Amino acid sequence: MSARLGASLSFLDWMQGVQTAMEQVLDRFLPTLTQVPAKLHEAMRYTALDGGKRVRPLLVFAAGDLFDTPLPLLERAAAALEMIHVYSLVHDDMPCMDDDALRRGKPTVHVKYDEATALLVGDALQAQAFAVMSDAVGLSELDAVATMQRQLGMVQLLAQAAGSAGMCGGQAIDLASVGMTLSLAELEQMHRLKTGALLRASVMLGAMGGKTLTAAESAALDEYAGAVGLAFQVVDDILDATADSATLGKTAGKDAADNKPTYVSILGLGESQALAEKLRGNAHQALAPFGDKARRLRELADLIVQRKA
Amino acid sequence: MSARLGASLSFLDWMQGVQTAMEQVLDRFLPTLTQVPAKLHEAMRYTALDGGKRVRPLLVFAAGDLFDTPLPLLERAAAALEMIHVYSLVHDDMPCMDDDALRRGKPTVHVKYDEATALLVGDALQAQAFAVMSDAVGLSELDAVATMQRQLGMVQLLAQAAGSAGMCGGQAIDLASVGMTLSLAELEQMHRLKTGALLRASVMLGAMGGKTLTAAESAALDEYAGAVGLAFQVVDDILDATADSATLGKTAGKDAADNKPTYVSILGLGESQALAEKLRGNAHQALAPFGDKARRLRELADLIVQRKA
Repeated sequence: MSARLGASLSFLDWMQGVQTAMEQVLDRFLPTLTQVPAKLHEAMRYTALDGGKRVRPLLVFAAGDLFDTPLPLLERAAAALEMIHVYSLVHDDMPCMDDDALRRGKPTVHVKYDEATALLVGDALQAQAFAVMSDAVGLSELDAVATMQRQLGMVQLLAQAAGSAGMCGGQAIDLASVGMTLSLAELEQMHRLKTGALLRASVMLGAMGGKTLTAAESAALDEYAGAVGLAFQVVDDILDATADSATLGKTAGKDAADNKPTYVSILGLGESQALAEKLRGNAHQALAPFGDKARRLRELADLIVQRKA
Repeated sequence: MSARLGASLSFLDWMQGVQTAMEQVLDRFLPTLTQVPAKLHEAMRYTALDGGKRVRPLLVFAAGDLFDTPLPLLERAAAALEMIHVYSLVHDDMPCMDDDALRRGKPTVHVKYDEATALLVGDALQAQAFAVMSDAVGLSELDAVATMQRQLGMVQLLAQAAGSAGMCGGQAIDLASVGMTLSLAELEQMHRLKTGALLRASVMLGAMGGKTLTAAESAALDEYAGAVGLAFQVVDDILDATADSATLGKTAGKDAADNKPTYVSILGLGESQALAEKLRGNAHQALAPFGDKARRLRELADLIVQRKA
């Protein structure tokens, strides 16, 4: 599906179009079963394909609308971000972390295979993400110098978002916070890194593949991504407290069972719902300068706040 | 230390110069303790600094001599490769893999901290490696377009070498081979991925930072790197069977205890030593086209075969 062709579609059709396209894109960018070692590649494909809401790819494609980012760069960014996200889930589910047996409705990798395989699947998916993001094959019809410059910047931003100043840093703070009483500000900082950094990177990579962003454009997208990222986590906490495992495709009620601080445990359910709604408003406001080109980003902010799983 | 200044030094002085410089380079490219989360950054620095023979950085700097690769690119490549190498050791030492308590003469990360921290330290070091490799800060005095093109190619090669077609793939084959009888060809394939891919990447990154390699230059360096990579592993197996833990800085005799196939277990000690010597000759032969510019690469081949730890 071309990003531009999708302009006439309803939001639901657009979303399903991106999700379907992502299965093909991931299939194309993952190692095949005919390559050695087959078992590792099977496990990488088991966890990365056929599952997930693909929130990060949706943000990439929606942000790509802003500046008509070329499809090959959108595909690379979306696949790379999803690989980083999936690897983090595989490692996060391991016994030494959250010790979870169910993910996206399927047995987690260390349950389906073994712990050592889960460790290597995560490690290899992270490396593959950077191989995809820096892949120059099939980009020859684009302006070579501008594309190289953007790709290098995208690698840099992805690495920062995935590392100790982003996702891994948030995981470390999360680990250290189990059983502790966090203030709202501390909880927010943890989530800004743990899930927020990668969601922000999704918006930024989608946009910066199309042009070098001005400071004002960066700031507006930052504000949007910050609001959506926090809203995503607030809603996650609400769903963990209110939905069942079958609906979520993962174990519900884990946060309370693990004695983890959440928005619901700090603010209560009603105030958490009000906060999510306020953040949705902030996200819309931040997009005002982009006019109709930001339609998909607006619709995604709505989806993230109103989702049921 | 500038790569070119080192030309008049003895091999030992040159080697120690690179090793000392690498501590400073890694210190500069690792997150500081004043950045959040401090404990994760402390653990990353604990395992990455002040230890190791820095074989990969030595190969980067030696290969950089061939085409006068600019120092900022050599430093980035060397730091990134060492971070990938160190992360792989941290994960490899975890209980679900080799379960080792001693590394470079110090407690391993999961022993000194805990398993979850070891998992995150490895994950964050891999991300940091790609952040460093794609870092554009301080490169402005170089030709911008050529440098971008080289950096993007270096990110791509590093990602391939680290992932499932390289280091992670070799680890997976290694895991699957415990307790099995491997042929010499199967053992060689495992090592070509597990340690060979990153050693080859060291040579290639050091060289390609200086120019776009011709097919003949690539082939010659490939042959050198292949010989040195295998020799490295043969000597590792010889040392594991003959040296003690204090000399190695890690647990000796692990391979036999773990029932792992090695060159010594398949070929015997004498034939293994003869093979290492033959590979050293092959490495020297491959470097013939480069003349005196390949002096450090020659000396490194000698070091790798003649080392005692």
